[in-house]
Amino acid sequence: MEVSPLRQVRKEKGAKKTKWVLKLKFGVTWKAIKKASSSTMKLNRFRLTCASSMKQLSLVRVQAEEAVKPIQQAHTKKKASHHVTKSLLSLLQLPYTASDFIDWGDLMTPTKSPKENISTKWREIHGLHNWDNLLDPLHPWLRREIIKYGEFAQATYDGFDFDPLSEFCGSCRYNRHKLYEELGLTNHGYKVTKYIYAMSHVDVPSWFERSHLGETWSKDSNWMGYVAVSNDEESERIGRRDIVMAWRGTVAPTEWFTDLKAMLERIGDGKIKVQHGFRSIYKSKSEFTRYNKLSASEQVMEEVNRLIKFYKAKGEEISFTITGHSLGGALALLNAYEAATSIPGLPISVISFGAPRVGNLAFKEKLDEMGVKTLRIVVKQDIVPKFPGFICNNILHKLNFVTKKFNWVYRHAGSHLKLDMFMSPYLKRESDLIGSHNLEIYLHLLDGFLSERRKFRWNARRDVALVNKTTDMLIEELRIPKFWYQLPYKGLVLNKHGRWVKPSREPEDVPSPLSVASENELH
Amino acid sequence: MEVSPLRQVRKEKGAKKTKWVLKLKFGVTWKAIKKASSSTMKLNRFRLTCASSMKQLSLVRVQAEEAVKPIQQAHTKKKASHHVTKSLLSLLQLPYTASDFIDWGDLMTPTKSPKENISTKWREIHGLHNWDNLLDPLHPWLRREIIKYGEFAQATYDGFDFDPLSEFCGSCRYNRHKLYEELGLTNHGYKVTKYIYAMSHVDVPSWFERSHLGETWSKDSNWMGYVAVSNDEESERIGRRDIVMAWRGTVAPTEWFTDLKAMLERIGDGKIKVQHGFRSIYKSKSEFTRYNKLSASEQVMEEVNRLIKFYKAKGEEISFTITGHSLGGALALLNAYEAATSIPGLPISVISFGAPRVGNLAFKEKLDEMGVKTLRIVVKQDIVPKFPGFICNNILHKLNFVTKKFNWVYRHAGSHLKLDMFMSPYLKRESDLIGSHNLEIYLHLLDGFLSERRKFRWNARRDVALVNKTTDMLIEELRIPKFWYQLPYKGLVLNKHGRWVKPSREPEDVPSPLSVASENELH
Repeated sequence: MEVSPLRQVRKEKGAKKTKWVLKLKFGVTWKAIKKASSSTMKLNRFRLTCASSMKQLSLVRVQAEEAVKPIQQAHTKKKASHHVTKSLLSLLQLPYTASDFIDWGDLMTPTKSPKENISTKWREIHGLHNWDNLLDPLHPWLRREIIKYGEFAQATYDGFDFDPLSEFCGSCRYNRHKLYEELGLTNHGYKVTKYIYAMSHVDVPSWFERSHLGETWSKDSNWMGYVAVSNDEESERIGRRDIVMAWRGTVAPTEWFTDLKAMLERIGDGKIKVQHGFRSIYKSKSEFTRYNKLSASEQVMEEVNRLIKFYKAKGEEISFTITGHSLGGALALLNAYEAATSIPGLPISVISFGAPRVGNLAFKEKLDEMGVKTLRIVVKQDIVPKFPGFICNNILHKLNFVTKKFNWVYRHAGSHLKLDMFMSPYLKRESDLIGSHNLEIYLHLLDGFLSERRKFRWNARRDVALVNKTTDMLIEELRIPKFWYQLPYKGLVLNKHGRWVKPSREPEDVPSPLSVASENELH
Repeated sequence: MEVSPLRQVRKEKGAKKTKWVLKLKFGVTWKAIKKASSSTMKLNRFRLTCASSMKQLSLVRVQAEEAVKPIQQAHTKKKASHHVTKSLLSLLQLPYTASDFIDWGDLMTPTKSPKENISTKWREIHGLHNWDNLLDPLHPWLRREIIKYGEFAQATYDGFDFDPLSEFCGSCRYNRHKLYEELGLTNHGYKVTKYIYAMSHVDVPSWFERSHLGETWSKDSNWMGYVAVSNDEESERIGRRDIVMAWRGTVAPTEWFTDLKAMLERIGDGKIKVQHGFRSIYKSKSEFTRYNKLSASEQVMEEVNRLIKFYKAKGEEISFTITGHSLGGALALLNAYEAATSIPGLPISVISFGAPRVGNLAFKEKLDEMGVKTLRIVVKQDIVPKFPGFICNNILHKLNFVTKKFNWVYRHAGSHLKLDMFMSPYLKRESDLIGSHNLEIYLHLLDGFLSERRKFRWNARRDVALVNKTTDMLIEELRIPKFWYQLPYKGLVLNKHGRWVKPSREPEDVPSPLSVASENELH
C-alpha cells in the first residue's frame, strides 16, 4: 500500500474557515475545520482503515502526531492544537504519552531503494578529493556505497560460527558460494572468491573463538574474512571492477591498550610503527596448521594479485576497497599499507567502522603519500576509535602541535564521518559503551544521517530491527526483542526419532583452506 | 539401525584361550583374545562403520567403555583391562578421560516405546492401594502413566506465551485444538476440551505474567491450564474414560512462606486450613474481566461436570486425574478437594511434581477420608516441596509426634516418590536449587528411575536434551545448549519487504473465554 509523506498538509483557505486535510499512512484521512472565529478545531471526519496490528497502530499514531505538528506551527494558540492532537488520538483509542512523538520513518516499505549509476562519480565517492563536500551533508550516493561495504563487513559477523559447542566454532557457517545468499546480500552484485583465515603468535585478548570440543576443525585459526569481486552488472553501475576485502572484527577490549609503546612494532623504514597485536594477527603463520600455512596477509595478497591479473588481461579498470569494523578496520589499514606498497598505481580505499588507531604519525603519512584513501566512520559515543592513545593523546590535547614531534603517538589516518547516537529517535537515550560500538548501530545511524545539523531522515529505509540483532539499543516502543539474532532452538533440530540433536554441518560447508573461485566462476 | 544392548558379552571358553566378542552400537564389533598364559589381551579386530558425527563417536566410545567393564570384572589384573580399554579407545582416536565412563543410554533410538494395555490395572496405578509395592522398584506401567501426566503438565509451560513484548503474554500460544499437535503430544491419545484462566485478588509474588504493551488480551488473567479427555482408543487401553486437569505452575519463590500462619485460610469446617495465596488464584473472579467472570475453580468444575454427564449418559466408567507442577501441584490439591466434595464416588487421583505443601493436617486427613489418591513426585534436591513449613517443620522435626497437635502446621498429603538428581549420569553434579525444581528434570529422573538402590536405567528412552530446554543442568559432554527452548529469532520473521517483524498472532490462536469442545468433538 503506497503511503503519503509525513508532513503533507493542504490548507484550503475559505472566507470564513480554514480547512486542513491530512493524508496519513494506511489510508487514514483526517479533516479538521477551523472557523476563523473559534480558537479550536472541529474534527469532522476520520477514517482508520487498516491499522490491525499494534505496530501499524503505533505508526498511525505517530503519523497523526507528525501531521498535527504543522498545525501547531500554523496555530498561534498552542492550547487549540493540543486539543486537536488529543481528539485525534482519542479517535485512535491510543494512550497519549511523550513517547508517541517519534518519527518512525517508513517502517513498512521495502528496505531497498532503487540504485543510481555512479560510474562517472566513483573516484570521488572513493575519496579522490578526500570526500570534500560529500560528507556534510552526506551525499546519498556515498551513503549507499558506505552502507554496502558496511554490510559486507557485517556479513563476517552474521556468517561466523560463535557456538562453542560446535566443532566448527570459529569458522564460517556457510561456504563462500552460499554466504551472500544466506545473509540476503546477493542484491549487492558481488561474488565471494576466497575465504581468509588468521592466527596469532602473540596472545591478543579475546579475538580468537575456540570450540569447547575435543575434535575441532582447527585449533589455531579463525575465519577472518573474505575477498569478493563485483559482477558485470554491478561493475557496470559502479564504473569499474571492484575487488573487496572484508575483515572480521571483534569488540576491542581496552586492555589491549594499557601500554602503548610496548605494543608498537616497527615496519618498513625505521620511523613507521604499528600496533603489535594487530600486526601479529595479520602476519602470523605456521607450517603445522592447516589453515595458516600462509598468513592472512599472504592469503589476501595472493588472491588480490590473481584477480587483478585476470581482469587486467581483459583490459578492465580495477579498484581495491578494504572494509572492516573494529579490529577488522585495523587489519584493513595494514592490508591497505601492504597493497599500496606492493601494487603501485592500484586505486585503494579503506572504509572502516569504529576502528581503533593502528599506527603512528609516520604510518599515517606514508599511507597518505602512497595515495591510500581512508574514510573512517565513527560513532561519537563509541570509545574503541579512541584507542590506543586515548589517555596519551588526551594529555597532549592542548599541545596538539607538539604531538607531531612524538612519532610514537598513535594517529588516525584519513578523513572521518562522525555520527551521534542521539540523532536517532529509535535508539535508547542512555549511551551504552559496548552497544555504541556495534556495527549495526553504525549502519543504522549512517542510514538516517543527513548532515551535522539536520535530524535523522524520516524516510531512511534500512530495517531498524537489525539494530537489536546483538544489542539492546532500540527503544521499547518498537517492541523488537533484544539480542534476537540466534539460531532456532540454538541449532537443535528434531530428528526422525523424536530427539533434539545438533546436526553435523553439511559437508559442503565444512571449511576448506583451498577453495577459491575458478576463472570460470569469475567468468 | 537396531542396536544391541550395552553389556552383551559372549565368553567362548577354549582350551587355551578365552575369546570375548563385544557387539557395540553402530555395527561396531570388537573381539579380544586372552591367552590363558598372558595377563593382557590382544585386540585382533575392530570395525567402526558409521560413527560420523561427534555425538555418535562419543556414543561408540562410551559403548566401548561399557563393553570393557565386564572384562574388567572378569579380570583380576586391573592393569590388563586398562590396557585393553586404552587400545580400544586409541583405535577410536578419541581422548581418554574420566568423563568417558558414562552410560549414555539409547540416545539414538526412538523416544517412544510400545504401550501396554493397562485396563485391568488402572485402579492400582491410580493409587487404589496407595501405590504399595509399585514405587520401589517403580512399576514400568506406572512410570509410563506418571510421565504421561507429567508431559500434560509440561505442556502448560511449553505452550505458554512468556514474551512480555507480545500483546498475548500470559495466554497460550496455540488454541486448544492445536496445543498437543504443536507440542508433539498427540500420541498420548487425549483431546483438550477447555482452557482454564485464573486471576488473583491477593498479590501472589511472581505467578502472574504481564505484557509490557499498552493493549493486551487481558490485564487480569493468565492461562492457567486446561481440561482434556482420553479418546476412545486410549480409553480402551487404560480401561476407562479419563478426564484430566493440568494446572500450570511457576517456580515458587520462598518469600511466599515467611509467615505461615498469616497466610493460612479456613475452608470447609473450622479445622481445615489451606495456603491463602494458592486459594486466591484458585477462587478469584471479577465481573469486570473477560476471562475470569468465573473463577478457575468454577471453570474447571463446570467442564468436569459437563464431561461426566456426557460420558455417564453413555454408561462409561470415568476417572478424574489432576496434575500439576510446583504451584500447579498445589492448585491440583485444591481442585481435588473441591471435586471430591461436590462429586461423591468419582475416582480422583492427583499426580503432582515438586509441589509445595498446601494445607494443614486436617486438610490432608479430609482428602484421605474422601478417598482422594495423591502421588507426589519429589526431587531430593528441590527445596520447593519443603515449603511452606520448611523452617517450622524442621524445628519440630525431633518432636514429630507433637506436630500432629498443631493443626496449623502444613502437612503433605498422600504417598510420594523420591528422586535423586545424583542418580542421573547426564546431570551436572553441583546441585542447582532452581534447576532441580524444573519439571523436565523430574521427568528425566522418572524415566531413568528403577529403584532406590539401582542405578539409572541404561535403556531409558526419553530425550535427554529436553532437560536443557530451560535449564543448564546437562553435563558438557552431551553438548546440548543451555536454555535452548526459545522461538526462532525470538519470534521475529522476515516479511516480504525484507523487514524483521513480530507477526500478529493467528486470529484462531487469539484467546477466547468461551471455546469448549462441542459434543460432536467429544465424538
